Amino acid sequence: MSSIDLIEAAAGRLSGHVRETPILTSPFLDDLAGRRVLIKPECLQHTGSFKFRGAWSAISALDPEARLRGVIAFSSGNHAQGVAHAATLHGVQSVIVMPSDAPQLKIENTRALGAEVILYDRASESREEIGEALAARRGLTLIRPYDEPQVIAGQGTVGLEVARQTRDLGVIDADVLVCCGGGGLTSGVALALEQHAPGLRVRPCEPEGFDDVKRSLASGSIQNNNESAGNICDAILTPQPGEITFPILNRLCGPGLAVSESEALEAMALAFLRLKIVLEPGGAVSLASALFRKDEIEGDAVIVVASGGNVDPQVFAQALEFLT
Amino acid sequence: MSSIDLIEAAAGRLSGHVRETPILTSPFLDDLAGRRVLIKPECLQHTGSFKFRGAWSAISALDPEARLRGVIAFSSGNHAQGVAHAATLHGVQSVIVMPSDAPQLKIENTRALGAEVILYDRASESREEIGEALAARRGLTLIRPYDEPQVIAGQGTVGLEVARQTRDLGVIDADVLVCCGGGGLTSGVALALEQHAPGLRVRPCEPEGFDDVKRSLASGSIQNNNESAGNICDAILTPQPGEITFPILNRLCGPGLAVSESEALEAMALAFLRLKIVLEPGGAVSLASALFRKDEIEGDAVIVVASGGNVDPQVFAQALEFLT
Repeated sequence: MSSIDLIEAAAGRLSGHVRETPILTSPFLDDLAGRRVLIKPECLQHTGSFKFRGAWSAISALDPEARLRGVIAFSSGNHAQGVAHAATLHGVQSVIVMPSDAPQLKIENTRALGAEVILYDRASESREEIGEALAARRGLTLIRPYDEPQVIAGQGTVGLEVARQTRDLGVIDADVLVCCGGGGLTSGVALALEQHAPGLRVRPCEPEGFDDVKRSLASGSIQNNNESAGNICDAILTPQPGEITFPILNRLCGPGLAVSESEALEAMALAFLRLKIVLEPGGAVSLASALFRKDEIEGDAVIVVASGGNVDPQVFAQALEFLT
Repeated sequence: MSSIDLIEAAAGRLSGHVRETPILTSPFLDDLAGRRVLIKPECLQHTGSFKFRGAWSAISALDPEARLRGVIAFSSGNHAQGVAHAATLHGVQSVIVMPSDAPQLKIENTRALGAEVILYDRASESREEIGEALAARRGLTLIRPYDEPQVIAGQGTVGLEVARQTRDLGVIDADVLVCCGGGGLTSGVALALEQHAPGLRVRPCEPEGFDDVKRSLASGSIQNNNESAGNICDAILTPQPGEITFPILNRLCGPGLAVSESEALEAMALAFLRLKIVLEPGGAVSLASALFRKDEIEGDAVIVVASGGNVDPQVFAQALEFLT
C-alpha cells in the first residue's frame, strides 16, 4: 500500500476509538501572531497526546496471532502511555521497558493503564538487550515510536482531520506547525496533507539546541543533536530524525522552526489563558513558533498542531509565572 | 414557541458560530468516580465558557433594528465576555457595566473583545440605574444572564449536543451534573434532555454555603443564599434561582449536589492531570460532585458539564498543589 492508503486504512481502524480533536481559536492569539491561528489540541487525545493514534494503528494492524502474544515498547513518556492504553483496550498485554529513574508518576500511570513495566538501570544495562530477550522469549512485537510505517500512518490521521476541519473553516493555504521529535507525527501529517490539502505546508518545530530536524532539512541529510537531554521539552528530544521519517520530511516540509525553553513555557501560559488547554513544553513549541517566529511564517493563517499535555504540575506552575 | 422549539431554533442560529465541544473521558477518573464519567468541557467554548452560546442566541434573535442599536449587560465575568464577543462578531456595539473594582484583566479582556466598558462605584452607584439610563438614551437591549428565554435557549444547545454525543457512546440512562448559578445553563440543558434524552436526569451542582438551588428544589420554593460573595466559585454565586429558571428546574431536575471549595480545587487539579483542560472553580463543581459525592449519584455512568475555565493563574496554581 502507498503511504496515503496506509493512513486512510489506519483512519478506518481508529474510527470510534480515537477522539477527533476540535480546532480551537482565540482572537487574542490571532492578535499576538499577526494572523489567524487555528490550534489542533492533541493534548485532548486519549492518554494526553497524539501517541495513542500511532499505538492503536500499529496494534490494530498486527495479525491476530501476533497481537494475542502482546506488544513491547521502550519509552518513559507519551509513547508508553499510548501503547499501554491501546493494548489494554485491545485486550492484549503490553510490556513497557523504562529506566528505573523515570518519574514515579509516569511508572504508576503506565501500570495503571494496564502495562507490565520492566525497569532497567540506565548506567549498567541495555534496554535493547533486555527488550529483545523479552520479546524473543514471549513472542512480543516491538512497537517503535516513529520509525514504523503503521505508527506513522496512525499519526497521519491528525493530518486527515486537519485537512477537513481547516477547509471547513475556509483555510486552504497555510503553514502547519508540528511539534517534531523523531518525526512520526510530522511525516504522517505531511503525507496526509500532500494528498488532501496540497495548499497546506508542514513546518517542523523543535527546541533550540535540539533542532536536528531543522538542520537536517537545511543540509538535506540527517544531522544529530549534540546533547541527548537537558531541555524542558523532554517529549520531543530525539538524537536525530528517523530513517523512515526523514526522507518524507525532506520531500514535503518547509524549513524547520526552533524556539527557546522560555518561549515554550510562555506559549503554555497563553494556551492556559486563551484556550483553556494544558500543554507540555514539547507540545507547545508549535504554538510558540506561531507566536514568536511570525516573521518566518507565511500567509494570513497558520495551523498549529499542539501535540501533548503530559506535564508535571511543577513545570506548569513555572509556565503560569509568565502571567503574574 | 415552546421551550424546546426555542432551543432548536437557537441551535440553528448558533450552527457554525459556536464550537461543538467534545466529550472527554479518562480511565483514571472512572476509577475515582466508581462509574464511567463523560465530561462535556464548555471551557473550550469561545470566551472560555458556555455563556457565549446564550449571548449569541439572544443577540441573533433580536430584530435587526434593535440589534443594530446594540446591547448592554451587567457582568464582570463570563457573561460579559460572551456578550462582548458575540456582539462584535455580529458587528454591533456592546456596553458592559462592571464594578470599578473588578479585576483589571477582566476589564481589559472585555474591552479587547470589542465591548465598551462602563465602570461604576459599587458603594455609591446603582448599576441598574446607570444601565437603564444608558439603555434608554442609546436604545440598547439588555441581555440578562439567565432569566431570559433566548439565553436559556442558547445554553440549552449544550443539552442537544450532550443528548446526541452520549447516545453515540451508548449512555442513555444517567445523571447529568451541571454547574448551577442562576440556572440558565441547567434549565436549558434540562429542557433539551426532556425532549431528546428522557433517560438523562439533570442534577444542579453548587458550592456549599451557596446552595440556593439545592435548597429551593428540596423545599419546592425559591430560597436565598445568606451571603452574596466569599467563595472561590465566583462564576456561579447568585442570590437565588431565577424566576424563569426555577420552575423549569423544579419540574425537571433531580436533587442538587453541593461541594466544598477544596473539592472544587481538587477537581480542577484532576481535570488538569487527566483531561488536560483548564477549569475554573465554579466550572469544576460538577466534576467535583461526580468524584466526591458518588453515593448521591445513581447509575453506571455520569455525565459532567464542566461549564467554564476563566480562572486566574494564582487560583489555578493553588489547585495544582493537590498534586504535589
